[in-house]
Order: sequence, then C-alpha cells, then structure tokens
Amino acid sequence: MKENKYDDIEFFNQYKKMSRSVEGLQRAGEWHELKKMLPSFKEARVLDLGCGFGWHCNYAVEMGAKSVIGVDISEKMLQEAREKTTSPLVEYIKMPIEDIDYPEESFDVVISSLAFHYIDSFQEVCRKISNLLVKGGDFILSVEHPIFTAEGSQQWHYDAQGNPLHWPVDRYFEEGPRKAIFLGEEVVKYHKTITTYVNTLISCGFEITKLVEPKPADYLMDEPGREDELRRPMMLLISARKK
Amino acid sequence: MKENKYDDIEFFNQYKKMSRSVEGLQRAGEWHELKKMLPSFKEARVLDLGCGFGWHCNYAVEMGAKSVIGVDISEKMLQEAREKTTSPLVEYIKMPIEDIDYPEESFDVVISSLAFHYIDSFQEVCRKISNLLVKGGDFILSVEHPIFTAEGSQQWHYDAQGNPLHWPVDRYFEEGPRKAIFLGEEVVKYHKTITTYVNTLISCGFEITKLVEPKPADYLMDEPGREDELRRPMMLLISARKK
Repeated sequence: MKENKYDDIEFFNQYKKMSRSVEGLQRAGEWHELKKMLPSFKEARVLDLGCGFGWHCNYAVEMGAKSVIGVDISEKMLQEAREKTTSPLVEYIKMPIEDIDYPEESFDVVISSLAFHYIDSFQEVCRKISNLLVKGGDFILSVEHPIFTAEGSQQWHYDAQGNPLHWPVDRYFEEGPRKAIFLGEEVVKYHKTITTYVNTLISCGFEITKLVEPKPADYLMDEPGREDELRRPMMLLISARKK
Repeated sequence: MKENKYDDIEFFNQYKKMSRSVEGLQRAGEWHELKKMLPSFKEARVLDLGCGFGWHCNYAVEMGAKSVIGVDISEKMLQEAREKTTSPLVEYIKMPIEDIDYPEESFDVVISSLAFHYIDSFQEVCRKISNLLVKGGDFILSVEHPIFTAEGSQQWHYDAQGNPLHWPVDRYFEEGPRKAIFLGEEVVKYHKTITTYVNTLISCGFEITKLVEPKPADYLMDEPGREDELRRPMMLLISARKK
C-alpha cells in the first residue's frame, strides 16, 4: 500500500493548520535555502513530485515556467492546490509518485519537496526521473534528514525537567519504515541513509551540484520550538544535474 | 596551534595498541569500503595527507604507484611509518597538512584517512588539493562522521543499566572544536557538517563520485563493541574527481 496519510481527514486538518500550509513557502523552514538551489524556470517544463498544496508549482509559473505538472497521491492536497492555482499552465495529477510514467527527456526540471521519505525505494523512482529529464536537466529534492528519521520516534530525548537533552540517533543503517507521531497522528515514513540518497543519484546518472542541511531562516526564529532546530538537521536538500 | 596529539607519548602508546595500528588496513573498520573507492594507482603520483603509519602509502606502492609522498604532523607516526616501509618510492614528510605547498597538477591521486577532523578549516586545504591534482585526478578522504562528532563527548547515551540507549546528536550546526576522550586522553577534533564537506569539494572544482557511511566489515564483528557500530555511522568516506 502506498502511503497516503494526507487523505486522512484528522491528519489533513492538522496539516492545514501548520504555518507552512497557511502561509506557504515563506513559512517553510527550508525555503530560503531551497530557493537558492533552484535553476532558472524560464520556458522550463517542470514536474513537481509530491506537490501538496502546489506552492512550488505556482512559484515555477511565476518564475516563467512553460508548463508545470504537479503529482500527488492525495486528493485533498490536490483540491487545495487547485483552489490556490489560477494559471492554466499548471496541471495537477492524482497519482502515487512511484507510478509516474513519462517519455524520455520530456522535462527540464524536476522538484520534490518532502515527499521521498514517504516512499520505500528511492532507486526505482530516481531512475525514472533521470529518464524523463533532458540532459543537463535539474532535479532538486528535499527530504527529512536521515538523522531525523533514523531512530524512529522523531522526538527529542528529554532530561528530568522535560527539556530536550539531545536528539537520539539509532538504527541508522536499518533502512525502512518508521512509525512516528506527526501532528498527533501515527505516520509511516521510510528511513534511508545519506549514502543511499547520494549514491542512488550518482548511479542514476546525476552529478550532485549542491547538498544542504538547512538551518531555519532567521526570520522564522520567533516561532515556538524553532531554536531547537539549530541543534540537529531536520532536512536534507540536494540538487543534481543529469549528465 | 596545529593539532599534534600523536606526539604525546601516552596517547601514542595507546594508539599503537589499537588493532588497526598493529594489524593495519585489514583491521580498520572502513577499509573494505574505502578500498572499493580507490582509483587505479598504476603509475600514479600519490599524496597521502595524514599518512600515520603509512599503511595507505605502502598499499599504493603495491598497487603500482610511481611515487608516494606521505605527510604527517607527528614525528612518532612517521618513525613508525619509515620502519614499516621498504620501497624507495615512498617519501615521508613531517608537516601539518594545512602547510602543503606543491606545484599545480603535480599529483594524480590524493588520499587522506581520518585526518581532516583534526583540522579547523577544510576550505583552504581543499583548494590546495584541487590545485595540485591533475584534471581528472582523484581525491579520496575519510573523516569521522558529523553524527559522531556533533555533540562532542563521542560517547553513547546509556540507560540506567549501563547499556547504550542511543547516540546523542546536538550542536550539529556549530562547527568547530570538540574536546573528546579518545584512548583515555583528551583530544581536540573539529566538527564540520556534511554540507561543509560536500559543498566545499564541489566549490573547489570536484565532482562527487561516491559518498559512503561504512558499516564495519562482517569479518570484524567479533571485536568487542563492534555491533554498536551498526547503530550509527562513525565515519564518512567521500571520493571526488577534479573536473
């Protein structure tokens, strides 16, 4: 069964309240770094895998994209995305990311924000992405950082006073499902090592152009809990170019 | 002051007793992976930064290197290296890694095993390495993994029964010195993020060819404590090619 937690009503309603859902990219802790890693969208054919509310699709159009396809497994996400989107250049498709099937070299840019940690195998989809990109095309992805997903609970280890003592890492080499509590609900995420992300990209014909473990932007540091985000990386961003 | 803990007699005597010191590469937990990342040494001019006992220098000669220079800050390390080395193709030089100064394109391969976490800045030395390598030349390095160095104590977090509960991560984004106990002595190591290692290589003109967080080899799992090495990565290996 492919993961589709976002069509669970309770979970979706919680997700909708997150500041990144309400206010979009400016409230997403990694956006200030991801933005710098994006290529030019001018006249680009763009594919967004796990497009969610469509923030990145709309951004790509604003930046001059010729066409954008947003793929997401969740109907609720896509409903919201369609409501937020006015440009006819964006098309949304309900589909598990794993099932994408496009002709060779039919896209110039592939983006994927915080989706691949919901997918068991990176290998197969990475090979597809390499095929559907033109030579010199760019693939930019963000995932939950392996430090964040390894142990599984996605919780700080607290001291006796209830303060976060440190972040626990365990089971790092044990790739596969982790049941964590996210927004008050049990969610399954798939831990993978940095080795797997980087070498899968390389073996699928990509050159790594940048790797960033982002700190939250300074202007977000007023939000509760953000300062703990300076203690361990929560996300991993990678940009790669098809050779 | 450049780090030279290995000329401290007590520390050095402890280091000499480690299985990787006594038996060499076969007893080093990462060797089975590092070996696969090495390029051909046939007729290569090789530079080994932080050569220690010279195991990698001697290996390069066995594999057909034309010449090998081993650089290390520690006189005691180099004494031991000279005793272990019979080939006239190897030259050992006492020098801090940071001080290397070679003409452009004077080497085909640069290797560095577990040395850069003793050095404050990776940027400057990486630029030098890029300059002294030929185009298409290879740079292969291993360091202590940022997960291993971030918090600083380099100790497991133990439960009430004295068993390792998990590995603590903290201060990840705070690059710089960490005082840890290694072999019973206080040693200063410099934490850097994966972001820093990877992007510094890329910005110095390298293409990342592989990144590996090695598990210890199966044949080493009989050593005490090795099974805990399967719970979090201790080392980070990167191979890169000068573009």
